[in-house]
Amino acid sequence: LSVDKIAQLSLLYKWLNSFPFLFLSGAGYHSESKAKEYKHVCKRACQRAVDRLKAGAFAVEAVAAALVELEDSPFTNAGMGSNLNLSGEIECDASIMDGKSLHYGAVGAISGIKNPVLVANRLLNEAQKGKLSAGRIPPCFLVGQGAHDWAVTHGIPPCPSEKMATKFSLSAYKRNKRKMELAEKMDTGHNQTKKRRQSSENENGSGCLDTVGAIVVDQEGNVAAAVSSGGLAMKHPGRVGQAAHYGCGCWAENACNMNPYSTAVSTSGCGEHLIRTMLARECSAAMQSEDAHQALLEAMQHKFISSPFLASEDRVLGGVIVLRCCRCVEAQPSQDIQGALVEFLWSHTTESMCVGYMSAQDSKAKTHISRLPPGAVPGQSLAIEGGVCRLMSIVE
Amino acid sequence: LSVDKIAQLSLLYKWLNSFPFLFLSGAGYHSESKAKEYKHVCKRACQRAVDRLKAGAFAVEAVAAALVELEDSPFTNAGMGSNLNLSGEIECDASIMDGKSLHYGAVGAISGIKNPVLVANRLLNEAQKGKLSAGRIPPCFLVGQGAHDWAVTHGIPPCPSEKMATKFSLSAYKRNKRKMELAEKMDTGHNQTKKRRQSSENENGSGCLDTVGAIVVDQEGNVAAAVSSGGLAMKHPGRVGQAAHYGCGCWAENACNMNPYSTAVSTSGCGEHLIRTMLARECSAAMQSEDAHQALLEAMQHKFISSPFLASEDRVLGGVIVLRCCRCVEAQPSQDIQGALVEFLWSHTTESMCVGYMSAQDSKAKTHISRLPPGAVPGQSLAIEGGVCRLMSIVE
Repeated sequence: LSVDKIAQLSLLYKWLNSFPFLFLSGAGYHSESKAKEYKHVCKRACQRAVDRLKAGAFAVEAVAAALVELEDSPFTNAGMGSNLNLSGEIECDASIMDGKSLHYGAVGAISGIKNPVLVANRLLNEAQKGKLSAGRIPPCFLVGQGAHDWAVTHGIPPCPSEKMATKFSLSAYKRNKRKMELAEKMDTGHNQTKKRRQSSENENGSGCLDTVGAIVVDQEGNVAAAVSSGGLAMKHPGRVGQAAHYGCGCWAENACNMNPYSTAVSTSGCGEHLIRTMLARECSAAMQSEDAHQALLEAMQHKFISSPFLASEDRVLGGVIVLRCCRCVEAQPSQDIQGALVEFLWSHTTESMCVGYMSAQDSKAKTHISRLPPGAVPGQSLAIEGGVCRLMSIVE
Repeated sequence: LSVDKIAQLSLLYKWLNSFPFLFLSGAGYHSESKAKEYKHVCKRACQRAVDRLKAGAFAVEAVAAALVELEDSPFTNAGMGSNLNLSGEIECDASIMDGKSLHYGAVGAISGIKNPVLVANRLLNEAQKGKLSAGRIPPCFLVGQGAHDWAVTHGIPPCPSEKMATKFSLSAYKRNKRKMELAEKMDTGHNQTKKRRQSSENENGSGCLDTVGAIVVDQEGNVAAAVSSGGLAMKHPGRVGQAAHYGCGCWAENACNMNPYSTAVSTSGCGEHLIRTMLARECSAAMQSEDAHQALLEAMQHKFISSPFLASEDRVLGGVIVLRCCRCVEAQPSQDIQGALVEFLWSHTTESMCVGYMSAQDSKAKTHISRLPPGAVPGQSLAIEGGVCRLMSIVE
């Protein structure tokens, strides 16, 4: 529990004037050369979601629309251009949660579908319709071939796997394969499993961690969250990461009797670390305490970097985007205004995280590449930033 | 939130004299005719685990041994004799958690493996060894064909699927298929999706819910939990239930700075309900409060039956077995005795739940079929029972 922790505290304050709001990210490593592309796709995704919100869509529909844009980009590790697994194939994870109904849908290790988030969203929608014939309970989580077949019978078109690979993902696969073969050859030369396992710690470039997520609050104050990932490069076929895991990849919960705040969280990073710490749900629960910034800082320190569930890990890699809002009535000089206070924060232990955000009032999205402070060690240090804004209800 | 809740409170108190201890269950419906078989396999599973504990095995090994026995029985919905899915195939879920290391392994929708829990256990063991070649992080959750292939390359023998079906599971499949076809024919005659979905509420006999789980504390006071399931009858291929879901099927956590009690939980019942309420982890967290019985009662009421996550469900079906223990030093007339206080409880909203338990001091396991009180409505009422025992450390 004595890891080196550095918190970069730099709060941005913004005041906006309308409700729909979007926020999204991908944690990993973002080189200067790729940064421009990441920012660009983030902007497009924000725009797509805001367009849907302006057309009256609920948060859950807007968040799915943002994810589709992110999946379609060949630069993100989700949908098109996903990391290839050990067999050179693409298997994707995705999930979505609606803070209003608290329904949830997820797919794991699905192949041959361009937009896994649409399958997750469709599972969510179908589950909301109630039981199937003969009283059967509809599934909330489907994997592999079964997930693919379900998608196709529900009208989601299949996509040939070879079309989902990109020049970049294919060359990364070849490079990784060579690296693995070399590492294994060196080990058998020397010998022993233990040695092999400890070696080459840092070779799995965190560039492959940049899965994507989004969180949204709509004009009624409903929140939603979604996440999509191609998984770790060279993962074993059938491996499912946090993006398909309830409570780990995304979380959304409208305010209720017990919770004063509506919260939405999406995570990105190393799936196994995010699963075993259930980071999305932990961050969501932390957000019910008064000081959001302090709560997220503590959650990232105690529930992630120093989590007893990851005691044997020397580097704990991940990032979160968090949104919380509460309705508030403020006495203004001229009138009483009903609105909401929205706090948005992001934090990561990866070298960098690309973040974009936009409200319906903005003409275009803002993007930002958050980086660890100079000298900070990825996986042992964290960056945390965020902002607050007050949104007026356009309903009332 | 105004469902009819009846709590049957009948605590059994027992005093035992040695540490290793096992407890297991399957929630569902247990007819008188099948009850004998269930009790019998429960006893054998307890015996198998206690044998391992006596030979010095840790809790996690003993719990896996118990699960193998339960999976091998053609009467349980796990491993051999599992429910068939919509395509007439067997796909199993299983997971295991070690309270000492907090490591976890799970498989989902795996076919052609006789003992899915052994694959989950092997994933747990492999992950404990650290990183794979080239710094790759080992998986904790594998699904489908990839899970099957991983198992076989790790020395777990494949088993032809047709050998895993039983006369009982095949005839249930035919019966269910006819029922579904009839339900769908009636609906297309009348019409409308909505109507179809609301109809035939109760036809999915809860007999198919009886997945299995076990919880163990060993002589060092380590806890472990595991669970295995063939899933709902007529589920869609690729559907993954709570048994493969982190925090939902099983949970085990040794006592630590923050938690005075070691806890282990295993759940059984309708997977979707158990996933969306994360029941295993919720019950584990509840067990840290002083009164275990009251805490479990409240958890089952507020976090399960009346959970906001299941607001649209009229019947919430599941059961849990819970174990918690803490070390205690007691001044006895003659000497100071170091031991542990172990509380074991079970609770279910299903019509019945079969429970077995045994300590290393017992010559044979005790079994019990717990039933809802007469007139209680399954899915809206609950039964809760349990006991306390003091175990002497045979180590010190």
